[in-house]
Amino acid sequence: MKMLTILCCVAIIPTVLCAPYTYTTKYIDVPIDHFNFANNATFKLRYLVNDTYYVKDGPIFFYTGNEGQIETFAQNTGFINDIAPKFNALIVFAEHRYYGESLPFGNQSYTNLKNLGYLSSSQALADFVYLITELKQQYKSQELSSVPVIAFGGSYGGMLSAWIRIKYPAMVEGAIASSAPIWQFTDLTPCKLFYRIVTNVYETFGTEKCADTIKKSWALLRAQGKSDAGKAWLTEEFKLCSPLKTDANISALADWISGIYVNLAMVNYPYPTGFLAQLPAYPVREVCDNINSINITSDRDHLKAISMGLSVYTNFTKSKKCNSLGGTSANLGEKGWGFQSCTEMVMPMCSTDDDMFENLKWDFKQYQEDCTKSYFGVKPLNPYLPIMEYGGKDLEAASNIVFSNGLMDPWSSGGVLSNVSSKIFSVILPDGAHHYDLRSANPDDTDTVKDVRNFHVKAIKSWLKNFYKAHTLANVNDFSKF
Amino acid sequence: MKMLTILCCVAIIPTVLCAPYTYTTKYIDVPIDHFNFANNATFKLRYLVNDTYYVKDGPIFFYTGNEGQIETFAQNTGFINDIAPKFNALIVFAEHRYYGESLPFGNQSYTNLKNLGYLSSSQALADFVYLITELKQQYKSQELSSVPVIAFGGSYGGMLSAWIRIKYPAMVEGAIASSAPIWQFTDLTPCKLFYRIVTNVYETFGTEKCADTIKKSWALLRAQGKSDAGKAWLTEEFKLCSPLKTDANISALADWISGIYVNLAMVNYPYPTGFLAQLPAYPVREVCDNINSINITSDRDHLKAISMGLSVYTNFTKSKKCNSLGGTSANLGEKGWGFQSCTEMVMPMCSTDDDMFENLKWDFKQYQEDCTKSYFGVKPLNPYLPIMEYGGKDLEAASNIVFSNGLMDPWSSGGVLSNVSSKIFSVILPDGAHHYDLRSANPDDTDTVKDVRNFHVKAIKSWLKNFYKAHTLANVNDFSKF
Repeated sequence: MKMLTILCCVAIIPTVLCAPYTYTTKYIDVPIDHFNFANNATFKLRYLVNDTYYVKDGPIFFYTGNEGQIETFAQNTGFINDIAPKFNALIVFAEHRYYGESLPFGNQSYTNLKNLGYLSSSQALADFVYLITELKQQYKSQELSSVPVIAFGGSYGGMLSAWIRIKYPAMVEGAIASSAPIWQFTDLTPCKLFYRIVTNVYETFGTEKCADTIKKSWALLRAQGKSDAGKAWLTEEFKLCSPLKTDANISALADWISGIYVNLAMVNYPYPTGFLAQLPAYPVREVCDNINSINITSDRDHLKAISMGLSVYTNFTKSKKCNSLGGTSANLGEKGWGFQSCTEMVMPMCSTDDDMFENLKWDFKQYQEDCTKSYFGVKPLNPYLPIMEYGGKDLEAASNIVFSNGLMDPWSSGGVLSNVSSKIFSVILPDGAHHYDLRSANPDDTDTVKDVRNFHVKAIKSWLKNFYKAHTLANVNDFSKF
Repeated sequence: MKMLTILCCVAIIPTVLCAPYTYTTKYIDVPIDHFNFANNATFKLRYLVNDTYYVKDGPIFFYTGNEGQIETFAQNTGFINDIAPKFNALIVFAEHRYYGESLPFGNQSYTNLKNLGYLSSSQALADFVYLITELKQQYKSQELSSVPVIAFGGSYGGMLSAWIRIKYPAMVEGAIASSAPIWQFTDLTPCKLFYRIVTNVYETFGTEKCADTIKKSWALLRAQGKSDAGKAWLTEEFKLCSPLKTDANISALADWISGIYVNLAMVNYPYPTGFLAQLPAYPVREVCDNINSINITSDRDHLKAISMGLSVYTNFTKSKKCNSLGGTSANLGEKGWGFQSCTEMVMPMCSTDDDMFENLKWDFKQYQEDCTKSYFGVKPLNPYLPIMEYGGKDLEAASNIVFSNGLMDPWSSGGVLSNVSSKIFSVILPDGAHHYDLRSANPDDTDTVKDVRNFHVKAIKSWLKNFYKAHTLANVNDFSKF
């Protein structure tokens, strides 16, 4: 057990109010394989606990960790800390297996398929159930027959928070699922929607001209990439660490650029943040300002404009010497997510003439083939797996979930955008980016995000009220505030 | 694919109306391990289909198979066939993995722990989800956006029918869970209740004297078992195939006798049946009549009375030459169930002075040790596993399940005996035995079982009504009857 202090914001952005969140790092032994009685091996799942605001018989606010080290999410989900005091809540951030320190086979976790095969949402949920069971045991009291737990999550973590309520409703009273694209699966949403929304963000926060410049850049990039001189120029212009040598390198550059546009749209928050990279307020606006600032008189000018735009993401802190085309964020476990995408998390996407990206069809066979090359020959066998497991659009039997989505978040393409029933709510942030509502309160917050956060608080109150009504054994505590 | 004709009743009981149910035997490839992406191996799961009553856009009545060959359950669940015509339903009986022909590793399925480890309720439910998905695909139409499925099950199959609705509510609209002891787990029900209910059955359908004779017999059996002469006498009296030689043999005899008392209580139906053995109407009454018919003047007379009683179960057809102490019913896969009991299905039971059984404490450590000797060293590590997985007593978030229980069924000790919510119903048969309501209509049926079956029909109608209301795309069919 070691102490770890996480800051809600980073030191380089002094204008934002900084509150240090103090967490205790803990570990729990959980089965590597929850579904095979021939295998009793366990591993240590990491979780962070903050009991600063906890008062006996208060709820547990449980963050269902994403595809990355858990600190990143503890750092960027200040909303939980903001509201914990009024609920007397214990805060727990649980790390997802195969990310951060929670490696079932240590540094051998990614070395072969045998070790990697247990990376799945089902196994991860079962880990969380083990941890919640342990926490309930630890925090139960004479006065309450159980301990209420509220699940929180953003993005994939939001999917997990919704899914843990759907699959294990006795474990959590309700879930706040922010920007959770639980419908970004085969046949549930048009494949072109995702990139269309990214384009909206550039048209809205930037300009139509900016999006147009981007759309036209792909052909120019490919043209430059055809010659050795062009490759050398692109290597220089985009400050790449390794020189571009092949056509595949050019495609990798195009993918990397696309990925950055997407990331920028996701984190287009109204104030500076350091979630996926160190970025200014409304970074998409800055990108487009940069792009539009160039007086384009040649193809290379056009690509220079693009590179100027991207520098907002790649070199905001001016400290980076060169760009590597590997991952677009050091905070996410892209290798693990790649494997998940090549097994169960098949999320069909395509780009068309209607968006600012290079045209790309959704081709499941091709997708399978690409996967085969990446993860020891594994490929997705059944793209409907998550629908079979979690119910797809049929949420009629589910309850106590708030789905929140920013319409300026690309992932809202797979989000639940209207109320499903009187027990499954959808709240919308028309201008919101990716799980914006889960961030801590900020002087530059929009009114909408404040409303959405109030909605969350009300929902949690009503779930807890029901819980305390049903589970309070003695009237020694005053739960009437719920 | 082969044709298989199953009779609802057996030829030796000519008084009961016999209707031949014709099933087609089919197989579907399902993953051996649904939760590990490093393992793509599949096996053939068997299922029986009866489309005699099926009309396009009708529902699928899906029986979630138990711990035994599926024919046994198709043979003893005539209720589904009785009501299928009025619903235009397709009938499907799905076999549970590791039973009957559905052996993941063929005749090697039980030879080592590695092969046996995938025998669990979670894996079995995932098999059923695969099959239901396939059936929905196969039977979908232009007029309906999906195909409604109702799950049925009795006993462990009833637990699975409830659990498939709880865990996969998008797969089935509702579940009829008959005699499903989903609360027969650690800390959910008193361990002594099960044997106390068995005793009730003997006191009610037999006499208090009968139960008393049984209670007193255990000490006499143990006393006889102490000497070689006594062992030889017992071997002869109980017509055992192998001579009793050790103290362990005497315990095995006692266990075997206990098991028969329990089985008799379970199948104490008002007419002759052949479910666990060929038995007369109200077999417990016959057992007690036999026991009470002996004028007991010695200890051996006392044990003779017991043996006379048991002969109702062991030799009703007069065809059996000797009794083997192995299993008490050829129709159930006792080896498989033993493994399940030694991994997740830990159901605490004990007997006390208040019942007719030999006193026995519930000792989880001893239970673990016994398991270790039986299945390649495996033992239950966490008796709360099914509660973590399926929610235990917290069914608040569940919906559309009818739990039916006979109060004269020992397994009602773990049953849901009162309504949980406006969506989870409990219906009671005060005199009913084990999943009596799932049997086909019989002239000797009690009024209560008719009421319970009507309740089931009403519940199914209301679930289907909601389904058709939500999923009917065109008004070409008349679903108004629901």
